[in-house]
Amino acid sequence: MNGVPFRTDLANEAREFIEGYRGGGIPGVEVQEFRTRECRVTRVRVTTPEAGRELGKPPGQYVTIEAPGLLKRSRPVQEEVAQVFVGEFTNLAPLPGDAEVFVVGLGNWQATPDSLGPRVVGQLLVTRHLHDYIPPELRNGLRSVAAIAPGVLGLTGIETGEIVWGVAGRVKPDVVICIDALAARSAERILTTIQLADTGIHPGSGVGNKRVGITRETLGVPVIAVGVPTVVHAATIAYDTIELLVDKFRDRAQFYEIVREMDAGDKRALIDEVLSPYIGDLMVTPKEIDVLILEMSKVLAGAFNAALHPKVDLSRHDITDYLQ
Amino acid sequence: MNGVPFRTDLANEAREFIEGYRGGGIPGVEVQEFRTRECRVTRVRVTTPEAGRELGKPPGQYVTIEAPGLLKRSRPVQEEVAQVFVGEFTNLAPLPGDAEVFVVGLGNWQATPDSLGPRVVGQLLVTRHLHDYIPPELRNGLRSVAAIAPGVLGLTGIETGEIVWGVAGRVKPDVVICIDALAARSAERILTTIQLADTGIHPGSGVGNKRVGITRETLGVPVIAVGVPTVVHAATIAYDTIELLVDKFRDRAQFYEIVREMDAGDKRALIDEVLSPYIGDLMVTPKEIDVLILEMSKVLAGAFNAALHPKVDLSRHDITDYLQ
Amino acid sequence: MNGVPFRTDLANEAREFIEGYRGGGIPGVEVQEFRTRECRVTRVRVTTPEAGRELGKPPGQYVTIEAPGLLKRSRPVQEEVAQVFVGEFTNLAPLPGDAEVFVVGLGNWQATPDSLGPRVVGQLLVTRHLHDYIPPELRNGLRSVAAIAPGVLGLTGIETGEIVWGVAGRVKPDVVICIDALAARSAERILTTIQLADTGIHPGSGVGNKRVGITRETLGVPVIAVGVPTVVHAATIAYDTIELLVDKFRDRAQFYEIVREMDAGDKRALIDEVLSPYIGDLMVTPKEIDVLILEMSKVLAGAFNAALHPKVDLSRHDITDYLQ
Amino acid sequence: MNGVPFRTDLANEAREFIEGYRGGGIPGVEVQEFRTRECRVTRVRVTTPEAGRELGKPPGQYVTIEAPGLLKRSRPVQEEVAQVFVGEFTNLAPLPGDAEVFVVGLGNWQATPDSLGPRVVGQLLVTRHLHDYIPPELRNGLRSVAAIAPGVLGLTGIETGEIVWGVAGRVKPDVVICIDALAARSAERILTTIQLADTGIHPGSGVGNKRVGITRETLGVPVIAVGVPTVVHAATIAYDTIELLVDKFRDRAQFYEIVREMDAGDKRALIDEVLSPYIGDLMVTPKEIDVLILEMSKVLAGAFNAALHPKVDLSRHDITDYLQ
Repeated sequence: MNGVPFRTDLANEAREFIEGYRGGGIPGVEVQEFRTRECRVTRVRVTTPEAGRELGKPPGQYVTIEAPGLLKRSRPVQEEVAQVFVGEFTNLAPLPGDAEVFVVGLGNWQATPDSLGPRVVGQLLVTRHLHDYIPPELRNGLRSVAAIAPGVLGLTGIETGEIVWGVAGRVKPDVVICIDALAARSAERILTTIQLADTGIHPGSGVGNKRVGITRETLGVPVIAVGVPTVVHAATIAYDTIELLVDKFRDRAQFYEIVREMDAGDKRALIDEVLSPYIGDLMVTPKEIDVLILEMSKVLAGAFNAALHPKVDLSRHDITDYLQ
Repeated sequence: MNGVPFRTDLANEAREFIEGYRGGGIPGVEVQEFRTRECRVTRVRVTTPEAGRELGKPPGQYVTIEAPGLLKRSRPVQEEVAQVFVGEFTNLAPLPGDAEVFVVGLGNWQATPDSLGPRVVGQLLVTRHLHDYIPPELRNGLRSVAAIAPGVLGLTGIETGEIVWGVAGRVKPDVVICIDALAARSAERILTTIQLADTGIHPGSGVGNKRVGITRETLGVPVIAVGVPTVVHAATIAYDTIELLVDKFRDRAQFYEIVREMDAGDKRALIDEVLSPYIGDLMVTPKEIDVLILEMSKVLAGAFNAALHPKVDLSRHDITDYLQ
Repeated sequence: MNGVPFRTDLANEAREFIEGYRGGGIPGVEVQEFRTRECRVTRVRVTTPEAGRELGKPPGQYVTIEAPGLLKRSRPVQEEVAQVFVGEFTNLAPLPGDAEVFVVGLGNWQATPDSLGPRVVGQLLVTRHLHDYIPPELRNGLRSVAAIAPGVLGLTGIETGEIVWGVAGRVKPDVVICIDALAARSAERILTTIQLADTGIHPGSGVGNKRVGITRETLGVPVIAVGVPTVVHAATIAYDTIELLVDKFRDRAQFYEIVREMDAGDKRALIDEVLSPYIGDLMVTPKEIDVLILEMSKVLAGAFNAALHPKVDLSRHDITDYLQ
Repeated sequence: MNGVPFRTDLANEAREFIEGYRGGGIPGVEVQEFRTRECRVTRVRVTTPEAGRELGKPPGQYVTIEAPGLLKRSRPVQEEVAQVFVGEFTNLAPLPGDAEVFVVGLGNWQATPDSLGPRVVGQLLVTRHLHDYIPPELRNGLRSVAAIAPGVLGLTGIETGEIVWGVAGRVKPDVVICIDALAARSAERILTTIQLADTGIHPGSGVGNKRVGITRETLGVPVIAVGVPTVVHAATIAYDTIELLVDKFRDRAQFYEIVREMDAGDKRALIDEVLSPYIGDLMVTPKEIDVLILEMSKVLAGAFNAALHPKVDLSRHDITDYLQ
């Protein structure tokens, strides 16, 4: 098999899928896994270009935090996830105390499943404009953070990458963090999984489908991508149905042969017929997507505020103690 | 076959589906169809309880206006649809000039695919509170219209039906109009089809799944239900995939037999596995659902304002000429 | 002086204003005050119809919680305010454990300064529809709560009071709680003060200006009104300017005489001239009204959830542990 | 008198105010005025730096379109205003057919009175990303338009000017158009007046108070600023009250002398006392600000689409005929 059929933005999901086919590990992919009470954390390191091609992900580090308990919208689960996130983020992107941080909330504020990035950015403790006014002795633990939500190509006429480059040229950050809504292959990942990667944003990824990359190569500084699946493409549902059906009748030789002989084009045509006229643009989301995205954006914003401003205890002090 | 597998709220879609199986018309169902430039209008009359059971819809009249051109968000298409709607509405519910009208926008303002009803209601020309202040000679063509968006059970703790009964007991309307977001079987119906019915709202219908009916029986006055499909249940996508696959290999005897012998329970189990853990709560929507619902709510609100206040030409006069 | 010039919905603000004029207490008004770290709590009991007329408030109990620190949006301040609120609410409305509670969020979701009520209601732990499914041994501490946001007259055509009566006739509550945005006289009260009253909602109060009352007299059960000032009428700003000017030159006899001889009508005409053409409809709000209302709605919703479900510790358990 | 007391962003309002004091025209200011059925159009040309200082506006051209009828939200009035706008815009900024246009929606999407710019931008017919795919023969009349809503300093940590410069460095436009919410001195201007200027955006202007300019000097291309007053500062209401009071008693010599002898500092202190603790941050808005801003954003977006794409008749064709 060549690559992952139908898109997932999650490196670990692609890995598990391919290993399922292969029946074993992928050369050039290193995996490390651990569990906390609510989370399964998987660190996947793609070390060779070949492994990258197979996974459909560029070489680099990918961390997924899976916490099915997030669907319960319980504060203790959310707090544990935030804490695990802070640890993994700090591990992936160890920032000096005086790092200039530039956060980019990708996606479309007005389209619910694509609104995660702008929502997180709207809740960040942004400090760059105040930093020079804060006495150095207080500044300790309060990094300079700037943030934008650049909008989407269809509404701006400008590639997101171009906006980010243009603004980064002014802000001159030491690191760029991109937050984006992703597509998963499996519905159970929707709003239960967070991915961190040190590889930046690549064309065609995310719900909003960027066309140009936002990467260390294009920006000259590390780019950390943080994403959460908010949709599954409807085509995936159809595809998985076929696969499961085949699997179910694996022992019925003739059936199995018949469906196996359908090539990728046949399957695609069948699926297109099911989804017409929307085809590529049908998204599968849980009914409660609005409230789940709202909660997830709070969890991520809180986690970022803790990771970026390590000495600020926002549960005990108020933001305005720092900002005014 | 017994009933329609997987839910559609559209009587005409259920009819076409069943006729496809049967290879012919359904006894007790009368169909009339005509076309305009942009619309296909189908009037389905269910005349017997048996036909109702087969369709899964109570006896009564159902009109669907299908206009695929609505996806282009073009003003001329929207205006034609509005005009056809006014004609069909007036035909289905011929109201005396002094009728008291009570409009109910069902659904959840904050959940995009379920927000159609509240959005339409928010744009209606509501007049009941002013009616007594308007001199009778100006009142001509300006009906008394009241409107509420009662919210959803999960947020109110009260069945929508109970709220409507309670308020209707005060308003004492001559007719109740319910506007709701629906589920279709086929993605091509999403936000391209409007259904009008004189049968009211029945338990389990709509995106938000009411549990009690809002009908002539419960309210004592005619209840016109107007709905637009905004989602397809994800299970439908999976189901249709199986059906199409079977159809495709209809001539391959062994395959066909194998899948045919899967009973409804087998299929359901397979589909549940695909959709786990969300199962019943995964919705399929077009990526542009936000803007499509916004546009549709404007079209419907404009059409209602024209249908309910026939002498008010809102393109030439302003609302406040009437209201102040 | 007769009554309070220009409107305040706060009984305590009216009291302080009149006492300022009088230079002493008002017969028939009992006042009790205490402080916590962040709050000043004033309990005003209006015991006679005469006192009520003078204050412009019907006889009954009024509690104001003033916490200027709320403007800092600090979590510890918010938590203290919520705790004080729970105490005062429980004191004012001691509810049996099995009381049926009906909460009404007055105001207009889409008009920011008038949106407090609907926003609080949208975050309540509503349980009435689940109550019968919860085993009695778990139900302890989880009251039956229903809630609606009935909308405003201009959008529904129906008096809010009528909607509440109609729905209450179905819900048959033991107590009704109305949450509303208020107008204060003084800008410093905006979003820093919460008023609780056992007198219900009276015509002409609130930002949205109801025309009919929601009271024990009309509903047959206690009605607790909870309100927060979100605006000052612009006329108040103009009026206060005149008063302060007069005060400033109190010792300059001729000046003082000249302005004193302006009667209420003269002042009103002058103010109308300043505010034309909006006159009665100009509101004064802080620039950050959007975020301040969002925060206040969270504080109030949290406080209500704690007050209504005393055994539910939402910081330690998740809602869905109770609801599913 | 030196400059305009209390802020207005409208050059014509400042001019009328100063001329009222002076009792005559201002040297270096040329004024041209005409009327249509619904609009009063005033073209003010500030030709000298001295005149600019007196008005508090840099030299350049300022056009105001005043249409009190906009408050009635009537479509015919809106259409006339849009038509007048297109004429004045085209006059002020005559663009070649192949001009690259870059539109910037200033302000804060989430703060209603400051949301005008982002709302207009969200409804523009943006084409830059499609322009190369459109055959030249169809491209006629469809200019290349890009647009962003850069957010506000408090949420991004980056001066709006810096974001605009950074992105303009990529887009390389021939003209920049900035849309902003303004503050007026007089409440009657709120959402009834549109100002166009060829002088760009200067520090301290607009509801959101930019600190750096967006001008031809900084960007190297013409910058057209389009603004609509959405608020009056509360201090203005207080100030106007004092002025009117003085005016009213102009013939009562002693009174007049007393108040006249208050210097600017005295007045300011008095006003601060009225508005405490919000002082500079209290805004006066009409109660219906939400719906009035929504309507105005539609009017402006429609007018811009017509002005920028002169051959696109959006009332007869649909956008997607052009874009797909």
